[in-house]
Amino acid sequence: MTLDAFRNDIGSIAVEDNPKLVQKKSRDFYWYSPVLKRQLDHVTADLIVSPKSEGEVVEVLAAAHRHGIAITPRGAGTGNYGQAMPLAGGVVLNLAEMNRIIETSPVHVKAETGAILEKIDQQTRAAHGSEIRFFPSTYRTATVGGFVAGGSGGVGSIRWGGLRALGNILGLTVVTCEAVPRVLKIEGADILKVAHAYGTNGIITDVTLPLTAAYDWIDGLVGFPDVMAATRFAEALARQDGILTKEIAVVAAPVAHDYFPHYRRFFERETSLVVVIAAPHAMDALALLAAHHRGDLVYRSDTVPPEEKRQFPPVYELCWNHTTMRGLKVDPSITYLQTQYPDFEHVRRIHEMLGDEMPLHLEMIRFDGRIVFSGLPIVRFTSEERLEEIIAIHENNGCLVFNPHRYTLEEGGMKQTDAGQLAFKGEADPKGLLNPGKMVAWENPDYDFNQKRSWVFAGLQSMDAA
Amino acid sequence: MTLDAFRNDIGSIAVEDNPKLVQKKSRDFYWYSPVLKRQLDHVTADLIVSPKSEGEVVEVLAAAHRHGIAITPRGAGTGNYGQAMPLAGGVVLNLAEMNRIIETSPVHVKAETGAILEKIDQQTRAAHGSEIRFFPSTYRTATVGGFVAGGSGGVGSIRWGGLRALGNILGLTVVTCEAVPRVLKIEGADILKVAHAYGTNGIITDVTLPLTAAYDWIDGLVGFPDVMAATRFAEALARQDGILTKEIAVVAAPVAHDYFPHYRRFFERETSLVVVIAAPHAMDALALLAAHHRGDLVYRSDTVPPEEKRQFPPVYELCWNHTTMRGLKVDPSITYLQTQYPDFEHVRRIHEMLGDEMPLHLEMIRFDGRIVFSGLPIVRFTSEERLEEIIAIHENNGCLVFNPHRYTLEEGGMKQTDAGQLAFKGEADPKGLLNPGKMVAWENPDYDFNQKRSWVFAGLQSMDAA
Ligand SMILES: Cc1cc2nc3c(=O)[nH]c(=O)nc-3n(C[C@H](O)[C@H](O)[C@H](O)COP(=O)(O)OP(=O)(O)OC[C@H]3O[C@@H](n4cnc5c(N)ncnc54)[C@H](O)[C@@H]3O)c2cc1C
Ligand SMILES: Cc1cc2nc3c(=O)[nH]c(=O)nc-3n(C[C@H](O)[C@H](O)[C@H](O)COP(=O)(O)OP(=O)(O)OC[C@H]3O[C@@H](n4cnc5c(N)ncnc54)[C@H](O)[C@@H]3O)c2cc1C
Repeated sequence: MTLDAFRNDIGSIAVEDNPKLVQKKSRDFYWYSPVLKRQLDHVTADLIVSPKSEGEVVEVLAAAHRHGIAITPRGAGTGNYGQAMPLAGGVVLNLAEMNRIIETSPVHVKAETGAILEKIDQQTRAAHGSEIRFFPSTYRTATVGGFVAGGSGGVGSIRWGGLRALGNILGLTVVTCEAVPRVLKIEGADILKVAHAYGTNGIITDVTLPLTAAYDWIDGLVGFPDVMAATRFAEALARQDGILTKEIAVVAAPVAHDYFPHYRRFFERETSLVVVIAAPHAMDALALLAAHHRGDLVYRSDTVPPEEKRQFPPVYELCWNHTTMRGLKVDPSITYLQTQYPDFEHVRRIHEMLGDEMPLHLEMIRFDGRIVFSGLPIVRFTSEERLEEIIAIHENNGCLVFNPHRYTLEEGGMKQTDAGQLAFKGEADPKGLLNPGKMVAWENPDYDFNQKRSWVFAGLQSMDAA
Repeated sequence: MTLDAFRNDIGSIAVEDNPKLVQKKSRDFYWYSPVLKRQLDHVTADLIVSPKSEGEVVEVLAAAHRHGIAITPRGAGTGNYGQAMPLAGGVVLNLAEMNRIIETSPVHVKAETGAILEKIDQQTRAAHGSEIRFFPSTYRTATVGGFVAGGSGGVGSIRWGGLRALGNILGLTVVTCEAVPRVLKIEGADILKVAHAYGTNGIITDVTLPLTAAYDWIDGLVGFPDVMAATRFAEALARQDGILTKEIAVVAAPVAHDYFPHYRRFFERETSLVVVIAAPHAMDALALLAAHHRGDLVYRSDTVPPEEKRQFPPVYELCWNHTTMRGLKVDPSITYLQTQYPDFEHVRRIHEMLGDEMPLHLEMIRFDGRIVFSGLPIVRFTSEERLEEIIAIHENNGCLVFNPHRYTLEEGGMKQTDAGQLAFKGEADPKGLLNPGKMVAWENPDYDFNQKRSWVFAGLQSMDAA
């Protein structure tokens, strides 16, 4: 059997084949989406392989190429579109053990792919008073390589934009899946071909990120009786060039109260929240602006005794996809969307149309030099059809949707195939063994994205086989 | 004589009455403007008084109030609208000797009003690796109090906006001009009433500014055959959320070549320049973007040997009002404007209409959370009438003009009186002795700014008197 031959070839590299453990490491947070849950619930790998060095990655990829084994890389498995799920079975390449921090300076960190983001910050803060520019709210568990390959932005994107902005990744090393795998140092324009490819374009072994000055950031919650007033304030704060913030999010009533039990005692069920993270020396100006908007600064972490503070999660774990996660704990029937609203008026219009069927959750970010409203609204899920209607309502009203109920790069993203990415895949993975089924342009070059139905990977494990 | 009585009252505080020296310290860079040159050339104070401490400032202001003596504060006298010129004679209060740096931390500096900006940075860089957020191109000579009272923004405003943005000044101390002068600690919303008041609202004795992380900034020049291509690149660079820049300016051909002799050998007379200052770890991405725009990175300071570099002024001294200053050295007949263009199209339209009569000089800045084109165009001056026409062309085409040929707060700025500022003046300077003639709303509350002619201060020294 080819799998045995593959195992044989990779010699002493750690392998796991216990089906329970293999299944566990074949999953990510795909179950956030009722659609992906239905489509991918049965998906599992045959083996987990856990290399400890770049040399071992090279060995694994050479053997995979030789025997035609599918390889799906995995960091911490916190992606929520099934990015790290082995649709065609084969091997999950667990990179969590390659987690060394290789070098740091005040302005950069180079770390192995499996390094946890929070660990990186701990080290660069201690050594240089510096920290990474932004992180996903899964900061405490996610790997740097998984973030670069499968994430987009997060806490800090209000200042620095996201991973797709030039300059936010300084370099990558990737290993190709060829007869003799190459180890490529990726810099400059090539970075964007390899990053955010869900691992279809080579296995990242290390990542170099720019650092910025660390502050003793303060968590805050500003309450408003009305979600649109909260949104106005969030936008005004985001536009304050002189107020140094790291996070500005809006969470509508009543979900703020319903989903955030730790913080509930600070505000009413009717309160919509603006969640903020700001530098200490920005708090006076922030409080002034909040008062001007008749907002109520109901919580600020610098006035809470440390013992008490330890009982709360940090406020960034109320934000980004953590809002949805907290919601799912309270009400497993909800789901969410990923949207983008060009301005306040678009937010208002959509909110008027959908009301409490889609409680607003907005993340203020910079995007191509503009302040925009990135949405991660809660959706009170009724059916897949209605979810499609809600998406259509957005699109028909000039709002972008990055569909989080799709497992392919194209359908979740810009609905366009990146020609550079595709060409790079041809070189790095000629047999198409890396994370099969995630890049439509590779699997099915003529696919028409204007179809109503979502694309289905022909190689997807059938339910029976699993 | 009241002046003698005043002198007598201020006892041992340093006073200068040599007319030559008094005249020298009664002037700033008003002569940039042919209009102000005509109006203010004869203006001079009677005395220069140079306090060394807040206590001495209190003494001087009490005596001024007692005897009805006009007091015009002065830092380094680098303002260029006659802000620091004693229109009604009296005393110039020279604050250059109050220049102690009072306290610093990684995130703030508190300094006496007369501290030179570059000196502040030297100290905070050495102590904390921190620096002020932005500075005028007169960095090496201007005082912090003069900047706050008379400036607007500068190198760094592409990241942090300007002085008018909430959060960019943390606090001020001001002394009022009353029978018993009060020493007020100004914070929060009050800051904007006192800052940028040309000293009409009290004498600032110290300023507290936020700091940001210092970098080993790199100077660069990117050349383009066409000024609109340069402008496109400047905008694209300004919109790059991930590329850390401190300065982005456009200087059109042929003035870049004509006015910048030190750098001339790096480019042709037909070259329009984008002047950039960027962090070292941003240079790769910046070079990539420049290449993408077919720009030519003709100079970067990190590739020039130190001995050679010492022969060039830093590139920030090619920017902001230094561009005009270098122009005036080459061609004393030119002048300039201060404009704001909401977008590229507005720049293009105005450039098409005015061509080489008004060679473009743009400073990319953040303004209320948006990237805008702040203009300091060179004007090949022919007459005051034509200058007014050029202003009208801007205004009729939806571009703002902040007229630098006016000595009043209102006419140079937003054409509106700031009610908060006016009310504050009532309390801080009931007799109207502080820098008389600069706040129209105080001198002439019913003045209609829609008149064609500029406002003239009735108390302006007559030519004969001088
Ligand atoms: C509660 C919650 C909150 C979240 N918040 C955010 C957020 O704020 N912002 C955001 O962007 N995302 C967010 N996410 C998604 C996800 O957590 C992040 O993108 C995270 O950075 C992924 O890291 P990981 O180590 O878990 O990657 P994984 O999920 O393991 O992998 C992500 C993708 O990268 C690929 N990959 C992993 N390692 C490599 C490698 N070495 N080489 C090549 N490909 C590789 C995988 O195949 C997969 O396609 C959130 C998810 C959850 C569940
Ligand atoms: C070549 C050149 C380049 C320039 N570039 C810039 C630029 O990039 N950005 C910019 O904003 N400006 C610029 N300017 C204008 C000016 O240099 C700056 O605003 C500078 O910060 C003024 O500082 P100063 O100490 O010279 O102030 P002064 O000119 O002495 O005073 C400025 C104003 O503040 C008042 N003032 C001074 N001290 C006090 C005090 N203690 N209390 C109350 N009022 C006070 C004065 O009365 C006056 O009205 C430039 C000028 C020149 C000539």
